[in-house]
Amino acid sequence: MTKISPLAPPEYPCLPSIAGIRLAACEAGIRYQGRKDLMLALLPEGTAVAGVFTRSKTASAPVEWCREALRGGAARALVVNSGNANAFTGRSGREAVLETAKQAAKAAVCAQNEVFLASTGVIGEALDAGVFTHLLGGLAEAASEMGWDEAAAAIMTTDTYPKLATRQIEIAGKTVTINGFAKGSGMIAPDMATMLAFVFTDIKLPQDVLQESLACGVHGSFNAITVDSDTSTSDTVLLFATGAQDAGAGEGAVAGFRAALDDLLLDLAHQVVRDGEGASKFVEIRVVGAVSDASARKLAMSIANSPLVKTAIAGEDPNWGRIVMAVGKAGEPAERDLLDIWIGGQRVTRNGAADAGYCEAEAAEHMKGKNVLIRVNLGVGEGADTVWTCDLTHDYIDINADYRS
Amino acid sequence: MTKISPLAPPEYPCLPSIAGIRLAACEAGIRYQGRKDLMLALLPEGTAVAGVFTRSKTASAPVEWCREALRGGAARALVVNSGNANAFTGRSGREAVLETAKQAAKAAVCAQNEVFLASTGVIGEALDAGVFTHLLGGLAEAASEMGWDEAAAAIMTTDTYPKLATRQIEIAGKTVTINGFAKGSGMIAPDMATMLAFVFTDIKLPQDVLQESLACGVHGSFNAITVDSDTSTSDTVLLFATGAQDAGAGEGAVAGFRAALDDLLLDLAHQVVRDGEGASKFVEIRVVGAVSDASARKLAMSIANSPLVKTAIAGEDPNWGRIVMAVGKAGEPAERDLLDIWIGGQRVTRNGAADAGYCEAEAAEHMKGKNVLIRVNLGVGEGADTVWTCDLTHDYIDINADYRS
Repeated sequence: MTKISPLAPPEYPCLPSIAGIRLAACEAGIRYQGRKDLMLALLPEGTAVAGVFTRSKTASAPVEWCREALRGGAARALVVNSGNANAFTGRSGREAVLETAKQAAKAAVCAQNEVFLASTGVIGEALDAGVFTHLLGGLAEAASEMGWDEAAAAIMTTDTYPKLATRQIEIAGKTVTINGFAKGSGMIAPDMATMLAFVFTDIKLPQDVLQESLACGVHGSFNAITVDSDTSTSDTVLLFATGAQDAGAGEGAVAGFRAALDDLLLDLAHQVVRDGEGASKFVEIRVVGAVSDASARKLAMSIANSPLVKTAIAGEDPNWGRIVMAVGKAGEPAERDLLDIWIGGQRVTRNGAADAGYCEAEAAEHMKGKNVLIRVNLGVGEGADTVWTCDLTHDYIDINADYRS
Repeated sequence: MTKISPLAPPEYPCLPSIAGIRLAACEAGIRYQGRKDLMLALLPEGTAVAGVFTRSKTASAPVEWCREALRGGAARALVVNSGNANAFTGRSGREAVLETAKQAAKAAVCAQNEVFLASTGVIGEALDAGVFTHLLGGLAEAASEMGWDEAAAAIMTTDTYPKLATRQIEIAGKTVTINGFAKGSGMIAPDMATMLAFVFTDIKLPQDVLQESLACGVHGSFNAITVDSDTSTSDTVLLFATGAQDAGAGEGAVAGFRAALDDLLLDLAHQVVRDGEGASKFVEIRVVGAVSDASARKLAMSIANSPLVKTAIAGEDPNWGRIVMAVGKAGEPAERDLLDIWIGGQRVTRNGAADAGYCEAEAAEHMKGKNVLIRVNLGVGEGADTVWTCDLTHDYIDINADYRS
């Protein structure tokens, strides 16, 4: 990919170091040539880990490994490769995972179940661990506290830019840092997006608090985005906490941390949508007045996943009849004659028909921008939710009709 | 649309007359210029009617009218327009429906609740019945038992060809005829396809038998197809039975009729898929070994609706990892390591990994054809189902990014 998404952020954030966390990446030639495709992160002793994974019934070998390793609750190393997802690879996939963990444990001088793994790329092709495991020792030696950018770049597949975010907060007099990076571009839908995201912090919190914080944060971020309604076999979000900053585990400390974590996760999730395959518009869909928040989420996703809504947005056509259609097909409680829809600041519908004051020219003007806002009020309850998506363009088809060649 | 779908049938069937059923169409200029967009069918006294409609929560005004009229169980006229769906048009929509029924009843010399209505086209624009109701009297005079072709053509929107089918069967010494025509091309998904289908027969059967026959037939045909997972506000299938051929209502007679009806509905449904917006491939997806037939349907639809599977088919790329992904995301019971997948005659996967005997070149060769067959055996039960879809191409985006202009 040479063309960077038109929705890419104007600049990438500079991630500060977090004491003891060191990263490195290199060219292993797993699939791509002339770019880095393998990364190693080393984590200091005492690092706690939380994780959220795909709910796919055909989860990849690395996902199964991480689920198991998570039971130990401790992490010392993270190895990620791009170009091959090591998914649906049977026994050879499990062997590749085991071999990688073994060599990474040697390089990081830790136990095998303190090694976390992720792979992203083509599904169904055997991953030959021998191609890259001999590189892990060198990566461990080269790893640096400044290695964030190259690590974020090494995990990209069809991504057109690396996705990085950082937050710093003061909690009980301690400065807590949260760094994260993610990849994802297509096969993006809950649960979760086809994506990998790795978040690193120096806060000290019990593992169950970290796990709950991550799970809640993912619900409102990575599980609230969709590019194409397709869910990956590899979705993985891991949160590593070194514990260097002990700000206590009181309600205020946890709330402060969670607010910053949520913010960072949403930032990364939006970056994934902004890099949606072929995306030319970033679309926010807010649903209010549904019977419940869960119902609002389903309605919002029905709109966000509709190919007809997405192609209309690509064509900058305020064809709001398709939003009506997508509400109708969601199977959630709705009353046609109570439904209000806005495009940008324009109320389009009122009492089951076009709003008398609706100005299509203004709605069309709104859709010419890079950011499109669609709001829906069902008028049947108090449930609300917001999701984010992108439009469906020719480039999506170009990218996906011939992904493997 | 000038380009006819490459998947169109080589020739259109010639529909025989059914005594007393007369049809006509004309140019009302509702939206399209230079083509017929309004049709009237007159039905003889004693005609029974059955109907199946969209389950959308934002159903159109004509759908609401038909649901109500169906309670009477008798039909004497059918009026269909294209170019405007009269959906989400509020009070003016209901008034347009009422005015149309009133004028059609006058033209057909029948009661208003014996008039059935359907509209297809843009959602959310007011339909001015005054533009065409004055034409209904002339249509009634011009109506002919040979009017099938022009009626089928008048209900088209983005369709590239009219969809017609006919069957004749002998039941208890009587020759029973079933004629049908349909429209549909985009916004095609259960329940049901964005489509209209009208079926006419001369059999005499009780209304409840007709209704059950139609509902069952739709499950295996129009509800088993998807173009883009979007469900219309207007989906309508109506079955009119004049009752001229009384072959009894015994088990054998009903079974014989239902077999022919099912066959005709499937024929029309396949024609809709073959005219899927931008379609270049007709795709059959057979799922067996699921825990139930309903689960098999959901798994098959998860594959059929996956944009990544559909773009891979458009690209003639046997990227079967995406089929694995679509099975995994369906949320239905599945065991990764029991999953078998075939592309054409090639078994691709076995025991949770690529099949040792899989030849990608042969699978790629199969995908170069116009008909693509994907089979999946879940290996976890006895449930089975088959659905049909098409690929996702650049033409779909061209057609839908700027549909209204």
